[in-house]
Parts: sequence; structure tokens; C-alpha cells
Amino acid sequence: MKRYKLTIMYDGKDFCGYQIQPNRRTVQGELEKVLSFLLKEEVKTYASGRTDAGVSALCQVAHFDTDFELDERRLISSINALLPKDVKVTSLKQAEEGFDARFSVKRKTYQYLFYVSKFDLPLYLGRALRINEYANLEKMNEACKYLIGKHDFTSFVARKSGKTDFVRTIFDAKIKPVSADLYALEITGDGFLYNMVRIIFGTLIGVAYGKIEPQEIENIIDAKSRSKAGKTMPAEPLLLKNVEYI
Amino acid sequence: MKRYKLTIMYDGKDFCGYQIQPNRRTVQGELEKVLSFLLKEEVKTYASGRTDAGVSALCQVAHFDTDFELDERRLISSINALLPKDVKVTSLKQAEEGFDARFSVKRKTYQYLFYVSKFDLPLYLGRALRINEYANLEKMNEACKYLIGKHDFTSFVARKSGKTDFVRTIFDAKIKPVSADLYALEITGDGFLYNMVRIIFGTLIGVAYGKIEPQEIENIIDAKSRSKAGKTMPAEPLLLKNVEYI
Repeated sequence: MKRYKLTIMYDGKDFCGYQIQPNRRTVQGELEKVLSFLLKEEVKTYASGRTDAGVSALCQVAHFDTDFELDERRLISSINALLPKDVKVTSLKQAEEGFDARFSVKRKTYQYLFYVSKFDLPLYLGRALRINEYANLEKMNEACKYLIGKHDFTSFVARKSGKTDFVRTIFDAKIKPVSADLYALEITGDGFLYNMVRIIFGTLIGVAYGKIEPQEIENIIDAKSRSKAGKTMPAEPLLLKNVEYI
Repeated sequence: MKRYKLTIMYDGKDFCGYQIQPNRRTVQGELEKVLSFLLKEEVKTYASGRTDAGVSALCQVAHFDTDFELDERRLISSINALLPKDVKVTSLKQAEEGFDARFSVKRKTYQYLFYVSKFDLPLYLGRALRINEYANLEKMNEACKYLIGKHDFTSFVARKSGKTDFVRTIFDAKIKPVSADLYALEITGDGFLYNMVRIIFGTLIGVAYGKIEPQEIENIIDAKSRSKAGKTMPAEPLLLKNVEYI
């Protein structure tokens, strides 16, 4: 049995999320259909984690096991020829000993794109959230600092999450300028809970609009109550940017 | 008579270029239609320059003159309410004395987006050109240096250009990484000729693929012959990023 590591890019717009579900178009579903067809056996893939409906990935990682003898260069071309144009495999390699796409993850980076404008802007439509021109980005950036560290993120997880361990470590979080009026929240951690980045962004919006002071983020974390944090923001501006293993 | 300065963003995909033409959908046409309707007089706008069909602008600048007494904040809202969603005015202000959107330009910056991959990639489709994985980006960057300075760019202008003065000054040109496998040629000059950035990019592709050595750019410039430079690359990955006046 050999294990292979896949790197995958997808545009989440027309997918009902990453994880396979019956009668829904999912990234995992499309991928396993093509792999199973090409390898002539039922292939199960295991990703670094799921992403919500509408969320895209520049770089998602998954693995699968097979006894099949693979020509990696030929297989990646065949996979991409069969996959739809909104999901492609960008790399396929035999995995190192002990590698597990889900359990070996060391760091994940997400990006939430937004722009500051009174008007919907042509080049940002559908890929960045518009926020009002009186938003205070310096305060948003200051608030980001309170997220960094090892915390119980119960306040920032969707109520329907099945998880019980809400402790995660955030290594870095900041607001970065991208281009004219376009910005990104870039956040790196050892893992993220269900809807966590979207709820964090909703809370930072509260800071930007002066409803929450940056230092109150500490109290919101301490409260361990979903009702203390901000709204869950839309999925489309969210991108899984990187998954690191070493 | 008062002069107003407009900053405009547009997604060039569905426009037949910036400049007004009869029976074609153009950025200038849409803009003048809305301005003329709102100001109840025929409004003529003058931009920093035209952009080709398919080319987008993060920041195009134009001016118009009117005797009309304008409430700038109300007018920009009305303009944007009437404009289609692929073109919006991002700023509208009374221009400084002597300002001319075309003749006062000091620097323009264009960006040409491309990615290096064996496969078409979901998040870059339609907005970046794919180039082959064996492209040598270091050589491309080296070739960029030979473009910098004041040169006669006859070799890099479309034959059907009506211009006679082909001397332009390039202040900066380089290949910048954007995100995973995505890069931009970013080029700043005092002005650009018809198709010039697209022909420059076509020539840089020749360098990337080893058909042209970086230092040969000098000979291509000296030759003053369109046939010595590379192909005209597609318009869609090209973006007018900034126009500067001071």
C-alpha cells in the first residue's frame, strides 16, 4: 500500500463545500469520482479539513492510499483532464512515511478578502466583501493581536459544530493591503473550527465600525459564548491559502 | 466652467475597450451616457488614455467640464446607481487648476498577470495567462531591466498605431510574485503605445522559454522593427493599475 499526497485548487462558488455528501456537488465527490474511475477501484481521500460551501482553496491538501502502481506525471494529467474546470490537482506525489493530510497538519492559513468603499466595485464583485468607508482598519489590526496565542475559541464556533475541543493556537493574524482599497485578513493557526474565520471576521467588522473596542476581544474569548462574538460573514471571500506540514 | 476629475474602475471583459465607438459597448460610452443624463447636457469626458478591448482598470482617470453646480457626493452616488455593475466611479472631485487627465499624466502603471502551471487553474481562469512550467522567471526579470529608461519603442507597437512619436520612458519593470504560482509583470512609464505592454509581455515569454536571451532586448529595441519583438499577448490579463499626476 502506498500513500499519495495531492495538492488541490478549487473555486468554491459552485460547490456545496469540500466534504462529500449524497446528491450534492462537492470537491471531494468530484475528486473521488475521477480517482476511482482512473484507478479502477474505490478511492477514499482524506483532506487537511473540510471547507464550507462557497469557500475556495488556493492550496488544499489530501491523501489517498492505493496498491496500484502509479505513474504520477501521467496520472495528474489524466485527473485534470477529467476534473471540471473549477477544481484541479496542482501536485501529486508519493507521501513521506507517516504522512497524514489531516493529522500531520502543522499550520493552516486562511485569507478573508474585503474592500472599503461606498459602492460595489467591478473587479472585487463576488470575491471580496464590501465594507463601509468609515471602517477603522487600524483598530481591526489592533484587535487581531488579541487573537494570537493559544485560546479556547468557543465564542467563535458555529453552534451546530460537533466538536468538543475548542482550543486552537493562532500564530499570526493581521490586515494586509492587497491593492487599491482591497485588503485581506490573513490568519494562520494550528487549526480552525467550524465557521471560525467567518465569525472572527464578523467580530473584526464590529471593531472596524466602533461597536467593539479592540481589547474587548479578550473578554469575548473569555466569555466562551457564541452570542458575544460577531456575525458569521459570507463564505465567498474566504480562501484556504496554505496548509503546512513541517 | 468647472473641471471635475473622475477615478474609474472597470472589468474590461464585456467592453469593446475604453474609447467610445458607435454601436459598441465601451466604458467611455456608458460613462458619458450616464453623466449626460444626470447633468441634462452633453458631457464629453477625457481619459488618461484608452485601454484595449478586454483590458480592465483598477484606476483609470478622466475629466469633464461643466457649468452645472455639482454636489459631488450626491452625483457620485447617482452615477454609480445608473452605471452597470462592471464600471463604477470610485472618486469624483473638482480638479486642480490646469489639470488635464490626458496631458498632465506623469506615470502609468500596468500589470500583466500570469501563472506557471501545466494545467489551467480554477482561481486564475480568465484573469491570468497560463505559461508553461519550464518558464525561466529569473531570465524574464533580467530582461525587464533592459526595458527601463528612455527608448524608442517602435519594435513594441502595433503596426496599425496612428502615432509617430514612439519614444517613451520606462521607470520600472519587474516580475513580482502574487500568490501560489501566480505572478505579475508590473511596468511603470510616462506613457504606453498601442498594444505595447502586451507585445512586451509576448517578448518576455520568448525570454522565459529560452528563445530570446535577456540582453537581446537591447537589440530588439534598437532594431525599431515590430517583427523583432514577440507576439501580442491576450488582453484579459492586463490591468491599468494606477495613473499618477504629481
